[in-house]
Amino acid sequence: MAQHSAELDGVLLALADPTRRAVVRHLGRGPTSVGALAREFPITLPSFMKHVRTLESNGLIHTAKTGRVRTCVLNRERLALVDGWLAEQRRIWSERTDRLEQFATDHAKDTQ
Amino acid sequence: MAQHSAELDGVLLALADPTRRAVVRHLGRGPTSVGALAREFPITLPSFMKHVRTLESNGLIHTAKTGRVRTCVLNRERLALVDGWLAEQRRIWSERTDRLEQFATDHAKDTQ
Repeated sequence: MAQHSAELDGVLLALADPTRRAVVRHLGRGPTSVGALAREFPITLPSFMKHVRTLESNGLIHTAKTGRVRTCVLNRERLALVDGWLAEQRRIWSERTDRLEQFATDHAKDTQ
Repeated sequence: MAQHSAELDGVLLALADPTRRAVVRHLGRGPTSVGALAREFPITLPSFMKHVRTLESNGLIHTAKTGRVRTCVLNRERLALVDGWLAEQRRIWSERTDRLEQFATDHAKDTQ
């Protein structure tokens, strides 16, 4: 996972904000224009655009302009980085449980 | 999930740092004294303690002092907040896929 560490830093930082998480959730339903997306949030357009840029620079979304309309699309794969890190933690926990069970089994044998 | 939003902000922010993620990973193997834990990281003790406090204030770990030894323990439940948010996103994506499939089925019927 080490090679993904800096990317994971950025993804987690980008997600550590309720507006940006709401944008990710909204885009999970499908690509949306920046204008339509911005109208969903009770903040100024410059503030909203800052959140969009943070999500884009950390790879969570990408945007593409067609004529005058800029559309935002979610990069689901980026969330898989977080999933992967959580899965690694669960593996470590289950290894610990296995070791504790082995210890308990060995101890039970010793005291028989 | 809204009621957990501020807590999730803090958890994600706390995890958006490689040292703090490494501490969480280490503690996944079992409780460890602050001293033993600090020796694993090539940073100064004050810097390390700052990370410990960030993890503790966001509920990812708790610490308890016995005599002169302070032990750190992981709060796994706190990571479940991140798991829950990711699960919500996957649910939204699968609903979208269902809608797209329904649309394709309806469209196929119309053109028959």
